[in-house]
Amino acid sequence: MLDAIRFDPRGLVPCIAQQHDTGEVLMMAWMNREAAEETLATGRVCYFSRSRGGLWRKGETSGQQQRLVELRLDCDGDTLLALVDQTGVACHTGRRSCFFLALRDGALAEIAAPEVPPEELYGR
Amino acid sequence: MLDAIRFDPRGLVPCIAQQHDTGEVLMMAWMNREAAEETLATGRVCYFSRSRGGLWRKGETSGQQQRLVELRLDCDGDTLLALVDQTGVACHTGRRSCFFLALRDGALAEIAAPEVPPEELYGR
Repeated sequence: MLDAIRFDPRGLVPCIAQQHDTGEVLMMAWMNREAAEETLATGRVCYFSRSRGGLWRKGETSGQQQRLVELRLDCDGDTLLALVDQTGVACHTGRRSCFFLALRDGALAEIAAPEVPPEELYGR
Repeated sequence: MLDAIRFDPRGLVPCIAQQHDTGEVLMMAWMNREAAEETLATGRVCYFSRSRGGLWRKGETSGQQQRLVELRLDCDGDTLLALVDQTGVACHTGRRSCFFLALRDGALAEIAAPEVPPEELYGR
C-alpha cells in the first residue's frame, strides 16, 4: 500500500481521521512514509508533525490515542482516510473533534465544548 | 470566516467533503480564497483544481454537484470540513466516495463498485 501512496514534494500526505463507528470526522493531519509505516505496523496512528519536524505518535503525551481500524486511500492516491477508534478526545483543546467551529448566521460559532480541560491532557 | 482560514503558502486550504446525513467522507480537495468565497456565496461547493490551475465548480461537467449544508473550520484554522448534500456520486470513477481503496489482508482492495459508468459522467 505504501507504494500506492503519492506523497507530495515534501514527502507528506494528508490523512483524515474518522471515528469508525459514528462517522465523526475527528481531525486531519499529515503523514510521511515513516509515519504511515509505523501506523500500519503498530495499529496506532502516527502522524508527522510539520511544526516539530518529526514523528507524532498521537496520544503519546495526552494519552488520547487512535487505534487504527482501517486505512483507506483515495482514487488518485494522494489522500488517506484512517478509520480509527479514538480514546477520549482528538483535539488538543479537549474537544472530541478538531472541527468545532462552524459558520452559522454569518459568523464562526463554537458548536462543541471541551470535554476535558486541555491542561489535564498536557499538564502531567 | 474567510479571514479565520489559514491558507498555505500556495494560497490553498484542504477541504474534506462529508455527506451531511450519513457521515460518509466523500472526497478531499483544495480551495483558494476565491473558491471558498464562491462556495459560501452560492451554496454550491467550488474547489480549486491544482492540475488545471483554476476554479473547479464541482459537478459543472458531470452534474454531480455538492450543495453546502455547513462549513466548518478546525482548531488551528488550516483545514475545512464541508458538510454537503452530494448529488449522485462524488468520485470521477463513478463511485460514491473517492476513498474506495482499503488495505485488507496486506493488499489494497476495492471496497466499492462504480454506481455510474464514468463515461456517462463526462461523455456528454
